[in-house]
Amino acid sequence: MRLATFTVDGQQLWGAVGETGMIALSDAFPQWPSLRWVIAARGLETVSNMAKTRAVSHPFGSFRWDIPVPDPEKIICVGVNFPDRNAEYKDGQDAPPHMSLFPRFARSFIGHNEPLTRPPESPQLDYEGEIAVVIGKAGRRISRADALSHIAALTLCNEGTIRDWVRHAKFNVTQGKNWDGSGAIGPWLVPFQSPSQIEDVGLSTKVNGEIRQQDRTGRMLFPVAEQISYISTFTSLVPGDIIITGTPTGAGARFDPPKWLVPGDQIEVSAEGIGSLINGVRDE
Amino acid sequence: MRLATFTVDGQQLWGAVGETGMIALSDAFPQWPSLRWVIAARGLETVSNMAKTRAVSHPFGSFRWDIPVPDPEKIICVGVNFPDRNAEYKDGQDAPPHMSLFPRFARSFIGHNEPLTRPPESPQLDYEGEIAVVIGKAGRRISRADALSHIAALTLCNEGTIRDWVRHAKFNVTQGKNWDGSGAIGPWLVPFQSPSQIEDVGLSTKVNGEIRQQDRTGRMLFPVAEQISYISTFTSLVPGDIIITGTPTGAGARFDPPKWLVPGDQIEVSAEGIGSLINGVRDE
Repeated sequence: MRLATFTVDGQQLWGAVGETGMIALSDAFPQWPSLRWVIAARGLETVSNMAKTRAVSHPFGSFRWDIPVPDPEKIICVGVNFPDRNAEYKDGQDAPPHMSLFPRFARSFIGHNEPLTRPPESPQLDYEGEIAVVIGKAGRRISRADALSHIAALTLCNEGTIRDWVRHAKFNVTQGKNWDGSGAIGPWLVPFQSPSQIEDVGLSTKVNGEIRQQDRTGRMLFPVAEQISYISTFTSLVPGDIIITGTPTGAGARFDPPKWLVPGDQIEVSAEGIGSLINGVRDE
Repeated sequence: MRLATFTVDGQQLWGAVGETGMIALSDAFPQWPSLRWVIAARGLETVSNMAKTRAVSHPFGSFRWDIPVPDPEKIICVGVNFPDRNAEYKDGQDAPPHMSLFPRFARSFIGHNEPLTRPPESPQLDYEGEIAVVIGKAGRRISRADALSHIAALTLCNEGTIRDWVRHAKFNVTQGKNWDGSGAIGPWLVPFQSPSQIEDVGLSTKVNGEIRQQDRTGRMLFPVAEQISYISTFTSLVPGDIIITGTPTGAGARFDPPKWLVPGDQIEVSAEGIGSLINGVRDE
């Protein structure tokens, strides 16, 4: 069962994804205003069971896809996490002993099938295909052995970046990573039931059908269990928190000349067992 | 009139600061569950007027001070923003053309009079005294000329840092800046009514009565109006957002040997027209 958040006539709903459209469920659970609440109440199975008793209420094409968890307390991205990614920075530095981390604000993401926004301030809109994990169980100083048990669900992310703004300042990529609507998360949540769903799955990014990024989570420099353990050393993870786990080599900035995204492009981020997140590009 | 958020018997309230304690007001405005809502509704004057008709309800010592806006959508810190701060990094790099920015999560801050947390993972807890501005009016691509009109209130911040964790990774200071309870914001909000409240005011940090940091906002490399304008270029600022505007030279890391904070220390961040934020230190 896959769960999603969507908007119809300006009203945000959540529900399950059926064969021909969305099975709205939020009306049946007024105590849970968003999927974050469902996750916090460990209600994913309850709402999935309800979905089996209902028909599609909103056919595909009649709604807007939103970020599956629209109101997370925090979104933390892991940088430089696949082989050769460090070399892409061409700064002569060795790979660091710990993972690079940077927060993104929820408003920097849109949902599936919506266009990424290219702002007038820069032509350097770039893609980064990633797997996102959604925390289900709160924790601090979570051991690596326990880490995967804190995951509620998986989804996909196009961690869209305004590349020149990443290097505006002395440190931190904040401003290149947080343009309103520059990235996407979705389409849906896949409940997490087994470590095999994340330990070694294929991840790819296509632009207009051409494969640009392709790797497997088994090759991450810092695997997801280590991410959860390390991040929770300093900050309490809470239900609904999203960790965006790192992108393979092959972003547009890597090419010479760089291949920036332009209106008309279609970007497809796919992972085994999760699905495909597809977005176009629009000029603001 | 100064407004604050506080907790009594596990219940969070907000109100005005009177001579002998807090004048609770949240009971009179159930439509505004936090000061963020008051700010979004432009209700600061309304609640201040109500305070004049009421007596102190909670004497000092009978409540816990909280972060004045406990639930901001985002908190953005400006780094390397006073003269000589770039040189403190000793990395041979020129001062960058744009301001450094990094987000902090609200849970990395506690309120006035509460102790900063020194975690067992590091002895390098450091202070950074700063002025924080709270956004009142939403905006994107705000001009520098209009920027100050988007401020609702001012407060203070001890932007407490676990110094060695700032340099864990390739870029980004995320992990050194986001330890739960490692910093403080408060004590209260001072409504913003005139540019003179921010354009050239004195800011200082004392540790156990000894002045460690002292400078004036007029010497900022990137003044507050420029901060609001630059940040809003990429992200929409909304009511309740907090911008932490940069610290003068003189953090504990600057000394040889460094002067890290230890339990028993008292840190006082003060600014003209705002007041003093005082915190101790506790071992976790």
